[in-house]
Amino acid sequence: MKDHVSTRSAAPAVTAVTLTGGFWQDKQRVNRDITLPIEYDQCKKTGRLDAWKLEWKPGQPNPPHIFWDSDVAKWIEAVGYSLAQFPDPALQALCDEVIDWMAAAQQPDGYLNVHFTIVEPDKRWSNLEGAHELYCAGHLMEAAVAYYQGTGKRTLLDVMCRYADYIAATFGHGPGQKRGYPGHEEIELALVKLAKASGNDKYLKLAEYFINERGQQPHYYDQERRARGDAPKNHGPAEIGPYAVFQAHLPVREQLTAEGHAVRACYLYAGMASVAKATGDPSLLDACRRLWDNISTRRMYITGGVGSSRFSERFTFDYDLPNEEAYAETCAAIALVFFARNMLECDPDSRYADVMERALYNGVISGVSLDGRHFFYDNLLASHPEYHKFSGQKSPRRQEWFGCACCPPNIARVLASIGSYFYTSNDDAIWAHSYASCDATFSVAGQNVRLNQQTNYPWDGDVAITVHPDQPCSFALALRIPDWCRQAALKVNGKTMAIPAINERGYAVIRRQWQAGDKVELSLAMAPERIYAHPSVRHDAGRVALQRGPVVYCLEEVDNGPDLADLRLPPVAELDVHPGPADLGGVPVITGPALRRDKSAWDIKLYAADNSHYHAGSLMAIPYFLWANRDPGEMIIWILE
Amino acid sequence: MKDHVSTRSAAPAVTAVTLTGGFWQDKQRVNRDITLPIEYDQCKKTGRLDAWKLEWKPGQPNPPHIFWDSDVAKWIEAVGYSLAQFPDPALQALCDEVIDWMAAAQQPDGYLNVHFTIVEPDKRWSNLEGAHELYCAGHLMEAAVAYYQGTGKRTLLDVMCRYADYIAATFGHGPGQKRGYPGHEEIELALVKLAKASGNDKYLKLAEYFINERGQQPHYYDQERRARGDAPKNHGPAEIGPYAVFQAHLPVREQLTAEGHAVRACYLYAGMASVAKATGDPSLLDACRRLWDNISTRRMYITGGVGSSRFSERFTFDYDLPNEEAYAETCAAIALVFFARNMLECDPDSRYADVMERALYNGVISGVSLDGRHFFYDNLLASHPEYHKFSGQKSPRRQEWFGCACCPPNIARVLASIGSYFYTSNDDAIWAHSYASCDATFSVAGQNVRLNQQTNYPWDGDVAITVHPDQPCSFALALRIPDWCRQAALKVNGKTMAIPAINERGYAVIRRQWQAGDKVELSLAMAPERIYAHPSVRHDAGRVALQRGPVVYCLEEVDNGPDLADLRLPPVAELDVHPGPADLGGVPVITGPALRRDKSAWDIKLYAADNSHYHAGSLMAIPYFLWANRDPGEMIIWILE
Repeated sequence: MKDHVSTRSAAPAVTAVTLTGGFWQDKQRVNRDITLPIEYDQCKKTGRLDAWKLEWKPGQPNPPHIFWDSDVAKWIEAVGYSLAQFPDPALQALCDEVIDWMAAAQQPDGYLNVHFTIVEPDKRWSNLEGAHELYCAGHLMEAAVAYYQGTGKRTLLDVMCRYADYIAATFGHGPGQKRGYPGHEEIELALVKLAKASGNDKYLKLAEYFINERGQQPHYYDQERRARGDAPKNHGPAEIGPYAVFQAHLPVREQLTAEGHAVRACYLYAGMASVAKATGDPSLLDACRRLWDNISTRRMYITGGVGSSRFSERFTFDYDLPNEEAYAETCAAIALVFFARNMLECDPDSRYADVMERALYNGVISGVSLDGRHFFYDNLLASHPEYHKFSGQKSPRRQEWFGCACCPPNIARVLASIGSYFYTSNDDAIWAHSYASCDATFSVAGQNVRLNQQTNYPWDGDVAITVHPDQPCSFALALRIPDWCRQAALKVNGKTMAIPAINERGYAVIRRQWQAGDKVELSLAMAPERIYAHPSVRHDAGRVALQRGPVVYCLEEVDNGPDLADLRLPPVAELDVHPGPADLGGVPVITGPALRRDKSAWDIKLYAADNSHYHAGSLMAIPYFLWANRDPGEMIIWILE
Repeated sequence: MKDHVSTRSAAPAVTAVTLTGGFWQDKQRVNRDITLPIEYDQCKKTGRLDAWKLEWKPGQPNPPHIFWDSDVAKWIEAVGYSLAQFPDPALQALCDEVIDWMAAAQQPDGYLNVHFTIVEPDKRWSNLEGAHELYCAGHLMEAAVAYYQGTGKRTLLDVMCRYADYIAATFGHGPGQKRGYPGHEEIELALVKLAKASGNDKYLKLAEYFINERGQQPHYYDQERRARGDAPKNHGPAEIGPYAVFQAHLPVREQLTAEGHAVRACYLYAGMASVAKATGDPSLLDACRRLWDNISTRRMYITGGVGSSRFSERFTFDYDLPNEEAYAETCAAIALVFFARNMLECDPDSRYADVMERALYNGVISGVSLDGRHFFYDNLLASHPEYHKFSGQKSPRRQEWFGCACCPPNIARVLASIGSYFYTSNDDAIWAHSYASCDATFSVAGQNVRLNQQTNYPWDGDVAITVHPDQPCSFALALRIPDWCRQAALKVNGKTMAIPAINERGYAVIRRQWQAGDKVELSLAMAPERIYAHPSVRHDAGRVALQRGPVVYCLEEVDNGPDLADLRLPPVAELDVHPGPADLGGVPVITGPALRRDKSAWDIKLYAADNSHYHAGSLMAIPYFLWANRDPGEMIIWILE
């Protein structure tokens, strides 16, 4: 925060932030008690766990799929985070059993992949573009790090270091090495974590190699395809390039727009930010900023969802954000959160935290039901109960599991580690990026500093933070003033501070010598807001969304009747906030007047010149992330104004 | 029109109506001079014509496709209509050559199908559900009738009677007969034409058989699939049934909604109406009315386009009419026109003619470019130039040809026979369903009656009709008062008649003894109208379409700039009509004021609470059917109000 001080910071370890109540504690409890056990059961039931025993034989049913390893890995990672704070010997024993299978499955050269060990052993590394080997490796590395940090057990960490050593020997510019890189990125960010956990910078170099090699000519995927006897890929939007779906159309520093499969893209960008922070590479950080700007100002739903098309699950073009046809995969919103957090670690600017919070409270947690047992893969922004039957879209109800089951364990690992998204810190400063009731400890200004935060966020904008340094010390405490907040007030030990005077890139920065018990009170006015989309978003023209705090609201048929697209919110009507239905936990809902056209006046006409019959009524909007927890029916976010 | 008189009527032969000027004469001239020759060239170039020589051998490239026969058939049908009024020995010689190949290709048993004679000779009649054999047969029958009526030449008619005899022997309830029916309907309406042209009622009975057998249990397609070694079909929206895409989910009299592939559906319904007229079967006519009502009040675009989904090119559910994702195949709008005309022949009610006219002036002729050289397969109701690159949709520019080339020759046969859509008549009455400058002759009240019509319709609503009976005689002349007209005036020999007093089901019915030279003047006020869609059409909520007379208008980017979805038409603004750009032939355009949001005020924001910056401008709307004839860009029909 001072000129001579790096703005780089780090998110706290999972153990450093303890939730003490409120919104995220509830979510995390359901995740721990319900979601993690059923995900184990699903992995067991579908063969994903036992696949690690390598007992499958050709000709048998249910061959281990190329992405199964990653589903189990994300579950172990989630368990690692959970065990860090909530020891559970039975759960740990289940994990240890699988990890033992993994260790036994590792090949003498260090290779570790179920599918390419027993199903297609002759195809190892033959299809980096499509076969997910390095993606699975990345998730296993993340699992290894989380499990080591959560339990102190090194088995998987050691396994994955050996695997990473083998990968580092296999890929690179040296003689006999392949100049390949993953078709589904993820390993880049995982290698940075592995480097940090193991202390071995070789893994950071490998991440750099994968990032820098991406999109270079002659194109590795062309060569790889020819080696397989396939023709080079030549389809895809011509001006972007055939490999844009894998973000491999250009070297990453030349990529100006977010392209292709949104999960892959955001994992890549998160990895780039992570490497940029570790190496200080300014050209890589610039590339991250360009891609961030393109996503956050052109290609992101109001929910923080990204990847608007289900065709290749991809980014499309600027301002193309269809609601009913949205894809907005849960994993993509999660990957965007990773990108945001990694950018915050490089560069504390509230625009990253604004998006991180937008995604977390909307497009991420919409992916799991209130009961923790059902999951969305794609997160629609409008839904008609008949539409999916004719469009090839997935069901507009959350499902128990998916054949491609990336999303359920992904959301589990985010919820199990949610505390690590609220703050970052360095030697001189602590940044609070979002708010939750928690105790957090930091090493800052040479001291251990504990922050106790009390809040009912996101339902209320009052935040009280008590500062407890071991010894009085000077550092900056930077509190994010969210983009959605029109009026914020700040007091330190009861004395009001003028926020504009201390606002630095969206944070109210309090620099002082902190004494034990110093109290900071932040009050964020949280009125229901009308939000409009950019004039080029053709799907939202003439429409308004309701948002309160970071939470985007929606209308459901169960509360508002059918024909929601035709319901009109008068432009100047007052909006009220009330406690909502008990079956949604009584969270605040937004109510207001509404007009509807009188259908009886339409008789049997489909088109008519007379449009004058309206009747007045009301609307009730619920938090978007809670939709589809009650009776099926229509849903919209964007309301006609 | 009198109680004791049948309301059944007949459309005139193509030769009975001669265009004398105006809109359709221009279209027909381009069709004759440009479109018919290039369609011949395309059929030649792609192998469709030479396929009839049966020279293709297994292993050679470009095997004749299962639907190629129908493309050539529709071209011959169009040529037949054209030759009826515009003799052209060279064109006729080209046709005769192909017909000779067809005659030579007919098998000894009467069978005639290129694909199943030389490509898959062992598969004849093994896949009625999917292989288009009876569909091709139907189109060849229509070609045979048109060519016979246009030229007097019987070769193809005789060939097709032999083929129809063979089909009648193959299918039915008798011993050894197959109880099958076509997966792609069309032959039903063709058989009624063949019955009429040949005087052989057997073909009408065969049409009845195909219609009545459809959807019966045990299901023929299940049996046929088992015979092929396939499982019965079990996908498709569960409550509708797996064979709904072929309208074979239920017996036709139990079908309450228009389902499945829209071209197949409307050809079937047109055939049902045709059989109902010929047989007087009231239950079949009732089924037609139910399906008509469902389409026209629930499942039809403002353009007369039908089949809103490109997945199976199908009808979906009530009020599901997406604009940018529309399918609305040109052939489906044409099939709806056939259904409308056949219903008019059963039952003169202007609601059929209203839809027929809506489709003809909008969703049908949008299928061909102004220059007659390019064609739309699907007819979008809104378009963004980038969208198709990411959605799997076809290009939003008209193409020279298609691999599946049903639409280009379909539009050619409609334009070549357009005169037969304006009137129907019986012994007691002549109905004018739409207006055009033409001379038409009828046999009515025992006399030959000629009507001379002068109008600049659809650009002007003044219509003058002079009546020329051979001898003075009494009959009813029924003039349609279109649904779009708010103010109509009628004079007979200069004397005003009160339309409401003589309005019968949407027609002003003038009953009198007609003398040579009697003059009827109809004046239809043709102001630009704002048209709204039913409140359940979620895609059009808050939006208005502009229509003038039967012509639906649209906005194009070339006239109005980008971000058309966000352009707002003030609710009470006056709309003007002016002559339009010369490159669109100077046809009337609609202009009015418009508001746009100021994009500069949006800076780099994607979502914002401030929506207060607008600037005033104007809009210019052109006839929808003329879109995509100039610079590529956005297009919308439904304008924010």
